Amino acid sequence: MGNLTYKNEEQRKASVHALANGESLARMCHLRLSKEPLPQQNIIAEIISLSRSLLFPGFFSDCDVNSFNLEFMIGMQCEKLKAALENQILAGFMLTALADRDVDLLRSKAEAMAATFIEQLPALRHVLHTDVEAMFLGDPAAVSYEEVIYCYPAIKAIINYRIAHQLFVQGVPVIPRMISEMAHSETGIDIHPGATIGRYFAIDHGTGVVIGATAIIGEHVKIYQGVTLGAKSFALDENNNPIKGIPRHPIIGDNVVIYSNATILGRISIGSNAVIGGNIWVTSDVAEGEKLIQAKANNILRIKSDE
Amino acid sequence: MGNLTYKNEEQRKASVHALANGESLARMCHLRLSKEPLPQQNIIAEIISLSRSLLFPGFFSDCDVNSFNLEFMIGMQCEKLKAALENQILAGFMLTALADRDVDLLRSKAEAMAATFIEQLPALRHVLHTDVEAMFLGDPAAVSYEEVIYCYPAIKAIINYRIAHQLFVQGVPVIPRMISEMAHSETGIDIHPGATIGRYFAIDHGTGVVIGATAIIGEHVKIYQGVTLGAKSFALDENNNPIKGIPRHPIIGDNVVIYSNATILGRISIGSNAVIGGNIWVTSDVAEGEKLIQAKANNILRIKSDE
Amino acid sequence: MGNLTYKNEEQRKASVHALANGESLARMCHLRLSKEPLPQQNIIAEIISLSRSLLFPGFFSDCDVNSFNLEFMIGMQCEKLKAALENQILAGFMLTALADRDVDLLRSKAEAMAATFIEQLPALRHVLHTDVEAMFLGDPAAVSYEEVIYCYPAIKAIINYRIAHQLFVQGVPVIPRMISEMAHSETGIDIHPGATIGRYFAIDHGTGVVIGATAIIGEHVKIYQGVTLGAKSFALDENNNPIKGIPRHPIIGDNVVIYSNATILGRISIGSNAVIGGNIWVTSDVAEGEKLIQAKANNILRIKSDE
Amino acid sequence: MGNLTYKNEEQRKASVHALANGESLARMCHLRLSKEPLPQQNIIAEIISLSRSLLFPGFFSDCDVNSFNLEFMIGMQCEKLKAALENQILAGFMLTALADRDVDLLRSKAEAMAATFIEQLPALRHVLHTDVEAMFLGDPAAVSYEEVIYCYPAIKAIINYRIAHQLFVQGVPVIPRMISEMAHSETGIDIHPGATIGRYFAIDHGTGVVIGATAIIGEHVKIYQGVTLGAKSFALDENNNPIKGIPRHPIIGDNVVIYSNATILGRISIGSNAVIGGNIWVTSDVAEGEKLIQAKANNILRIKSDE
Amino acid sequence: MGNLTYKNEEQRKASVHALANGESLARMCHLRLSKEPLPQQNIIAEIISLSRSLLFPGFFSDCDVNSFNLEFMIGMQCEKLKAALENQILAGFMLTALADRDVDLLRSKAEAMAATFIEQLPALRHVLHTDVEAMFLGDPAAVSYEEVIYCYPAIKAIINYRIAHQLFVQGVPVIPRMISEMAHSETGIDIHPGATIGRYFAIDHGTGVVIGATAIIGEHVKIYQGVTLGAKSFALDENNNPIKGIPRHPIIGDNVVIYSNATILGRISIGSNAVIGGNIWVTSDVAEGEKLIQAKANNILRIKSDE
Amino acid sequence: MGNLTYKNEEQRKASVHALANGESLARMCHLRLSKEPLPQQNIIAEIISLSRSLLFPGFFSDCDVNSFNLEFMIGMQCEKLKAALENQILAGFMLTALADRDVDLLRSKAEAMAATFIEQLPALRHVLHTDVEAMFLGDPAAVSYEEVIYCYPAIKAIINYRIAHQLFVQGVPVIPRMISEMAHSETGIDIHPGATIGRYFAIDHGTGVVIGATAIIGEHVKIYQGVTLGAKSFALDENNNPIKGIPRHPIIGDNVVIYSNATILGRISIGSNAVIGGNIWVTSDVAEGEKLIQAKANNILRIKSDE
Repeated sequence: MGNLTYKNEEQRKASVHALANGESLARMCHLRLSKEPLPQQNIIAEIISLSRSLLFPGFFSDCDVNSFNLEFMIGMQCEKLKAALENQILAGFMLTALADRDVDLLRSKAEAMAATFIEQLPALRHVLHTDVEAMFLGDPAAVSYEEVIYCYPAIKAIINYRIAHQLFVQGVPVIPRMISEMAHSETGIDIHPGATIGRYFAIDHGTGVVIGATAIIGEHVKIYQGVTLGAKSFALDENNNPIKGIPRHPIIGDNVVIYSNATILGRISIGSNAVIGGNIWVTSDVAEGEKLIQAKANNILRIKSDE
Repeated sequence: MGNLTYKNEEQRKASVHALANGESLARMCHLRLSKEPLPQQNIIAEIISLSRSLLFPGFFSDCDVNSFNLEFMIGMQCEKLKAALENQILAGFMLTALADRDVDLLRSKAEAMAATFIEQLPALRHVLHTDVEAMFLGDPAAVSYEEVIYCYPAIKAIINYRIAHQLFVQGVPVIPRMISEMAHSETGIDIHPGATIGRYFAIDHGTGVVIGATAIIGEHVKIYQGVTLGAKSFALDENNNPIKGIPRHPIIGDNVVIYSNATILGRISIGSNAVIGGNIWVTSDVAEGEKLIQAKANNILRIKSDE
Repeated sequence: MGNLTYKNEEQRKASVHALANGESLARMCHLRLSKEPLPQQNIIAEIISLSRSLLFPGFFSDCDVNSFNLEFMIGMQCEKLKAALENQILAGFMLTALADRDVDLLRSKAEAMAATFIEQLPALRHVLHTDVEAMFLGDPAAVSYEEVIYCYPAIKAIINYRIAHQLFVQGVPVIPRMISEMAHSETGIDIHPGATIGRYFAIDHGTGVVIGATAIIGEHVKIYQGVTLGAKSFALDENNNPIKGIPRHPIIGDNVVIYSNATILGRISIGSNAVIGGNIWVTSDVAEGEKLIQAKANNILRIKSDE
Repeated sequence: MGNLTYKNEEQRKASVHALANGESLARMCHLRLSKEPLPQQNIIAEIISLSRSLLFPGFFSDCDVNSFNLEFMIGMQCEKLKAALENQILAGFMLTALADRDVDLLRSKAEAMAATFIEQLPALRHVLHTDVEAMFLGDPAAVSYEEVIYCYPAIKAIINYRIAHQLFVQGVPVIPRMISEMAHSETGIDIHPGATIGRYFAIDHGTGVVIGATAIIGEHVKIYQGVTLGAKSFALDENNNPIKGIPRHPIIGDNVVIYSNATILGRISIGSNAVIGGNIWVTSDVAEGEKLIQAKANNILRIKSDE
Repeated sequence: MGNLTYKNEEQRKASVHALANGESLARMCHLRLSKEPLPQQNIIAEIISLSRSLLFPGFFSDCDVNSFNLEFMIGMQCEKLKAALENQILAGFMLTALADRDVDLLRSKAEAMAATFIEQLPALRHVLHTDVEAMFLGDPAAVSYEEVIYCYPAIKAIINYRIAHQLFVQGVPVIPRMISEMAHSETGIDIHPGATIGRYFAIDHGTGVVIGATAIIGEHVKIYQGVTLGAKSFALDENNNPIKGIPRHPIIGDNVVIYSNATILGRISIGSNAVIGGNIWVTSDVAEGEKLIQAKANNILRIKSDE
Repeated sequence: MGNLTYKNEEQRKASVHALANGESLARMCHLRLSKEPLPQQNIIAEIISLSRSLLFPGFFSDCDVNSFNLEFMIGMQCEKLKAALENQILAGFMLTALADRDVDLLRSKAEAMAATFIEQLPALRHVLHTDVEAMFLGDPAAVSYEEVIYCYPAIKAIINYRIAHQLFVQGVPVIPRMISEMAHSETGIDIHPGATIGRYFAIDHGTGVVIGATAIIGEHVKIYQGVTLGAKSFALDENNNPIKGIPRHPIIGDNVVIYSNATILGRISIGSNAVIGGNIWVTSDVAEGEKLIQAKANNILRIKSDE
């Protein structure tokens, strides 16, 4: 028995050695070259939580908000957000920078970017206010603004998107994507931080929604669960891999409604005031005010129970 | 440098001031008027956890359950559940009540509602037992009741739905919706607490399922991933916004099976024993025992590899 | 008042008694017969976290990884993983074993299985390396391997699948399914641990993907959100319940691409190099190199805005 | 075996019943009559921690303090301190109040007392500043103010004393004693909150120091480890128990030094500028400027090694 | 630089190797031979916390205790206490048992000992009730039983002593000493679990009290801070080391009072109703009713300020 | 009411303003000039915990230590210890350094000092081994080495002292004192890190022991509770404050025993093999082998009970 145990121990030590050495580590292991930070899920989560709390004071805080403490709390949360953001923006730079990077320069850049982000918070709150209003007015089941803010997953997804988009626009690498993926995991709504989305944006239910990196969406647009605004096909390079960075997702006008599970693919335009019915597959332009609806369901077989 | 730092500090203080004041706060900030509770995700999570543990003793507890401690544990968990529920039901009332609310009255009401909920737990366990049985019998991959309870996301979604529905029926505001949204986030299954669902209810896989607030579902119904029981269109009021509270979702009979990604919209009836095939789009009544299946896929283009 | 409180207390004690006794407990309560472990979400979560950290050192750790500590850290994590796995494999056996089980024997078996799993980690890392490569090359929005590992939900789902599949193949009960369901909850991607999936597997977006227990997938396959590889119908036994254990999901060749929301049902074959377009419904074989695409959308009604 | 287990279980249930019932509970069990708070070690600990942080900003905080966040942090900490203090002051009242107490009245009183305490914090900081100065100047081993604040247990004991004394003077029941006992446990220094202690108070080492409830200490007093300022004897009532509330501890003048393990008992006066040597036992007045030192050690037997 | 870093890394690896190997490990390293438990501070702390809560329901619990939940809570706490005690008693056995120990036998013994301990809890509560009463009546500063229970460190020390003594008497190794040392650390009161102490035992202030392993103390005894009941000298064995297990501490009668810093050494008897004054050094018997007090302080030098 | 609340709020804001501004902050507030670390209790606690675990593997770890993981665990713990030490040594420098300090230089120095400390761990373990042996052999109540390591507070105090002394000797500011104060709080034993203490050092019970900064202690010395090795008087500077840094504590030879509450003051020598009895007051040299014992207690008044 002791002998067997010893043998097992040797085998396990061999596994440890195999996992810690050799070519299998290449690209799968992230050795730290210095003490600069790496992206960390828990700090990203704190960034999201602080941002939500600053944008909607009193809704997402652990602590009561009242007329005495409102400004103190916002001051403290700004301080914490700034520190967490600087850390993770720098982490994003370290991940993508070349070997001969200038850490001090990147750190200054990260600090400046975090400061800029905080300056944009009042503007972000204004836009999010329009989203909440759109969601409340557009859902017959919504009973109050508060219910929308507390209960609607789409609010969480859109907050994360607007935060991530702001950072994306400022040129922050990796972190915006991590922020939007956390909402994706939480809500099933997958909005790429690169997408451009106007005010009064509403999503109902939301699970399965995909909005691609180069999509452009107008104002007062409403989208239901399972809608994809995707790419139709990719230009391939000489190695048969997709070429990166080309506009490939739809442009959606103002006041458009897209019903559940509709799929809109490619760099096409959906004109303002258009309506895309559920389960519709769209790969070409739709004119202003046009409605696309499921025609008579002529490919469904109805088998009566007495057949 | 010091000067620059000072300037940044002033800017940040200005941001704090902007976030803590002015009209941007309207409807986005929840100042507490008194010490009454607000809805809190972590207390809702505890309510769900205690309810799951009471309904399925020994499955979701941290602690072992045995013949010695079973009744003690249930007693303690009932106590904790009652306290957490009272707190959050009152929070729901505070959120929706008018300014001149009578807090003591609402508190008594919350206590009575929490007590009623606990009295309903044995009945809820009976219904959930039928759901587990349906899930076990209906899935060829299920190997035991225990596997179903431990591993099937639909069980979690249905527990949350049945808890939330009980509270919804009792008239609890906001909290039922938060409970069902937590299951939505956890499982991708979005069942509105207002829906009415019979015994022996089964969902397979489940991601993307949406069941609307006024849907009525019979007994022995089985639903696959991506199924929507939704509203077709809303009656609009004079401001072009949907009128709230009108029955607008389907009525599903007994023994109905609805395959993946089918969409059933509007206040239509699906008769008992009907079968709705995958990806089918249904906006009109289906008779008892009728089967709707995807006809020959006549709008698919097959391009052979040698073309 | 005191009287009312006393009465409520009596009622609550009656509820406790009802919940702790009687036939309602049958199959809903898991009394522990001995001190052997039960499946526990938090230990499963630790198993996943340790495995991810061992497979991708430095990416998912709390702690920095460097050339000094790499082997020490891997050694410690192997030790912790072994302990957690032994515990949960035994828990799986206890759940499914007969009453007259031999606990010591099962414990030895659990220890051997955990040791085997750890020996397979280097091989699992090799396969996962191919998946990361496929995901990076196949997505025009991906900017680096690191971004793919940090941000792509599909990576998490595939790690969990490959871990769960390894345990499934070794004959571990229940636990593999719990591991894959945790990825399902995290990512909306539902891959049964019984499925067989080749190298260079890529999923984009992923929400709503379902891959059934007997599916077989070749190498270099890419799948988009909402794709179902499901069963068409079940053979029913004399009680009208599905017969368990029969191959009933598709076989997918090499280099196949399946676009969003396509549904492929039954034990059919999709030949190598085939392409299945979005929203396509497939229930019969597809030849090698064949492309199935949405034909002209002849069942969509276009209503121009001036109509 | 099963029979034995069952018997043990019955015995344990009997123990539970015995512990939960009967006269043994009298005065040993604290049933809650209502939802008002009870004293809680962890909230007391938070009160101490917040007070220390407010009095010495930047020394005892988790979080950095800088010119940007100083006022925000102090604002937030005042808010938290006020809430925790109100809760525990009310808890103190509930513990000591009669059965027919007016909870609303006590709550208002608790709120007012907490507010008053916070208003006294700047004054408390001024006094503590003198204590730190005395400790720094008086110890040849002290290298900086910062070292004194971080490392000297006496600072912690004196902070707690000054907080507790303030609350004691305001008439708060029980809580002041709990605050001073926490310092007693942390430092071995036992200062009753009722004692009156002047500015520039220093304690060195401190373990075993006892300062009684009615002691009065002047300014610039320094005390070493093991010093007792105690009561000599108690006036007894008809039941042979000590009569409560009579002045029974020493009065110490200004600039007095009391060396280690000296014991000073009874309502005697130690005049200003007096010095009490180590291990001295004092039960009668000491005049201004008098020095009491250990005389030639005439009751020690020296046994040489060659005896 | 890189070279220097590498060299440091090699040195550190050498330190690791030195610490993990060689004779320095002997008796300083506790390798686990099996999966049996080791003594753990945090489990001991839980044992103390549960015992305190069971003995004084409602005082030391996190959770409210009321007439509804009292028995449930006690039931749950007994269950947890039993599990923790079994674990640590077995840990004690493993630490002290010979190499060829019979683990199953020791486990059964541990279980039986834990069960016996729980059966003794009602009796322990009765004795502790007398201690609280003695402490309340004997201290002019005590205002209520509740204050004594919440605030007096001696209560914590005596609870731990009575728990530890019960386990010591049952023959549990190591664990009783760990329990009494935790009180020593918390209160500065060091009572060996082997000491025998009668009912109505009171300690005031307490820091520095030492009560040795073979001391015997009657009823209604009161002790002040700094009192030592110690051994005078040890019988030495042939290696000049103390012989273990010989009675060597004092026997104290009933109704004895021992004032602060008195030292009583050796197997002497202090007769009932005796009073030992502060700072007194006693190494021979004291008769019943005798009072030892500090005589006129003839070895103190008084130096007047004008000298 | 509202008016009163508003007034209170204004008052509280005034308190906040007073606490955050003005001269009261001077020397009481530690504003951070940069992002360098400050001393933190919790990191110091981690340093102590890791050191204890490295010096006594398997005794103070959360995790089992076995032949498989011993070196891995030590490796990981060295890594963590190094990081925590570097951080806190730098914190010590920042606290004491001048305004124009060179942070990069101090950081390198901190790193080098932490590395040196880790290299000294094997030597520290050797010395601590002698202390454990002395404690075991010298106490008739000790039953095993393991009991000594687990239960004797003196072991914890001596570990902390030896760690702190090593850092003190290396020139680390502030942190050594914090380490020894944590043992002081935990055990009541106050050993200044500057003291020099030989091998085989034993303390029994220990509460109240004070060993001053310039004390020198030989080998095989044993000390009981309440012993002070202190300074007799300080040389004062022109401001009447003690002059810092002068040798002022005793020198103790080898094989000396000092019984409880003895006080030894000033730069005197206690010769090897001397014995100092309990409660003895010593301010002049004691010759080699001399024994000082309490003479016949001629200043104690015995009052017989019949007097």
